[in-house]
Amino acid sequence: MKAARSPHETAPTPPSWEDIMQAKERLQKVIHRTPLVHSTLLSRMAGCELYLKAENLQRGGAYKIRGAYNKAASLPPEAREKGIIAFSSGNHAQGAALAARELGCPAVVVMPENVSPVKKQAVESYGAQVVLAGTTTADREREARRLAREHGYAVIPAYADPQVIAGQATVALEILEDLPHVDILVVPIGGGGLISGCALAAKTLRPQVRVIGVEPERAADAYESFRRGQLTKIDSSDTIADGLRALHVGEINWEIIRRYVDDIVLVSEEEIKEAMALLLTRTKLLAEPSGAVTTAAVLQGRVGASAGQKVAAVISGGNVDLSTLAALVAAS
Amino acid sequence: MKAARSPHETAPTPPSWEDIMQAKERLQKVIHRTPLVHSTLLSRMAGCELYLKAENLQRGGAYKIRGAYNKAASLPPEAREKGIIAFSSGNHAQGAALAARELGCPAVVVMPENVSPVKKQAVESYGAQVVLAGTTTADREREARRLAREHGYAVIPAYADPQVIAGQATVALEILEDLPHVDILVVPIGGGGLISGCALAAKTLRPQVRVIGVEPERAADAYESFRRGQLTKIDSSDTIADGLRALHVGEINWEIIRRYVDDIVLVSEEEIKEAMALLLTRTKLLAEPSGAVTTAAVLQGRVGASAGQKVAAVISGGNVDLSTLAALVAAS
Repeated sequence: MKAARSPHETAPTPPSWEDIMQAKERLQKVIHRTPLVHSTLLSRMAGCELYLKAENLQRGGAYKIRGAYNKAASLPPEAREKGIIAFSSGNHAQGAALAARELGCPAVVVMPENVSPVKKQAVESYGAQVVLAGTTTADREREARRLAREHGYAVIPAYADPQVIAGQATVALEILEDLPHVDILVVPIGGGGLISGCALAAKTLRPQVRVIGVEPERAADAYESFRRGQLTKIDSSDTIADGLRALHVGEINWEIIRRYVDDIVLVSEEEIKEAMALLLTRTKLLAEPSGAVTTAAVLQGRVGASAGQKVAAVISGGNVDLSTLAALVAAS
Repeated sequence: MKAARSPHETAPTPPSWEDIMQAKERLQKVIHRTPLVHSTLLSRMAGCELYLKAENLQRGGAYKIRGAYNKAASLPPEAREKGIIAFSSGNHAQGAALAARELGCPAVVVMPENVSPVKKQAVESYGAQVVLAGTTTADREREARRLAREHGYAVIPAYADPQVIAGQATVALEILEDLPHVDILVVPIGGGGLISGCALAAKTLRPQVRVIGVEPERAADAYESFRRGQLTKIDSSDTIADGLRALHVGEINWEIIRRYVDDIVLVSEEEIKEAMALLLTRTKLLAEPSGAVTTAAVLQGRVGASAGQKVAAVISGGNVDLSTLAALVAAS
């Protein structure tokens, strides 16, 4: 799972507390301070006090701008001026494009050949150049690294990078500012960037908080890793939660997860859809499937919350296309 | 348009600044402090800086709890203990029921015989007793006033009451706290409770702010009143924006509107639906049609905003049933 690193990728050591504080400082004027929404209705259904960290209201529709901007801003100016490059089929593409626009540097995003026109346009609307390459993550990564070598671009990884992790950690900082006595923090796991950052920050500030990761049953690689006690790769994943289809978490992310995460639980496709519908009709928030897994886990009683406990679930994003939404609404 | 008043309805004079400050104080621990969400994408489409006051994230899914709670809390304890009564087919029903639960007093809500089971259940889930009466507002009001006389209940009006107006005014207080240099405030008009409160508060704190009311073309009573310079009643209304179907605004609301509101503009049914779809897909917020009219007016360039101006549009609520949403998504 080790890949050659480009000159601006940092060695895989977890971010320090100073890195996280610096990320907070850098992001202050760039990102939205998203609300932590308490839902009385969902709390009653879940049997605990449920708070939703609405990163679907974040710029670009997901938390991704935090890590991407922090990584890009941490580069030496001369590296940044040559341009940044990211590879993604999803929210990281928009996050990286937005980050580059904010920093005034060129950006290239490698997306799959079968990318939806809407997603491609969203990235282009932020001023990034889109390059299409194959259909797999490996295809995109290969092309991105080739372009990086050829043009001197700096690669902005989606999750396996200390500065990216430090950026995502600011989600937990905000939750703890708004809800200092939070008992349980519930975070989705794809590549592990968000949960590693959140776990690191939350356990530093409040060691007694429990951090629970959530994966779809159909993309249960981190769950397997956690059970076996070693980073495990699955062969394939197939879930409506398209942001959580990674076949394994990053090495550096795994090191943080196994140290700081208390448990990893699974949710079914049906439970994800139900949670999306409930979030929409009861809290008026549009969550994408990947963003709804945490609410699903809490509603299913899988995070070990007892009555009165304060549970913060991260809604990681809200980028759903209308056809997915239509199918969801029709099924409800 | 004058109706006999129950003993606890106040004479129709506008609330004082002290009334509004007291409402703020009373509501502090009861309501959600809803976010003021800036949307870069919608701002670019609208040609101004657009901020959305997300009262769809308010408790009960709409701003209504503010006025209802403030009115109920302003009653003498002995009056409140006998119970409160409201009549409504929409969000005020939930607002009043929630207010009563918070205050620990009995509540009766008169709803139409053809009320949707979902709406009835929502009110009952807050512990209120639902009484069904006829299908028109007049039917509901008659039954509510009869029950009030018979049982000594205090009527909680939906809009034509100083304490209700003072409660709704807190929406504008929060907007001005978050965005002190707002140039234009855009507010939907149904019975006029929200806009009269918001106009009063906003013009007191910031006289140079422009306050623009929005109505559907198909329920243009306040628009007509404004053009003619006198409170005008229309014969019928028929719009997807079910919270804005009132045939005329309240007397006391009109007195405030004509003094403090700068203009009233109209939006079509199509424009409302488009705004709903955009709010959902671009900002991840579910607005009900009545809550989307303000965004529609800004996007259509009807509020007189120039480039760089800060415009705050109130999304008054998000209570949409899934069938309405399904129709919307299918049409987009």
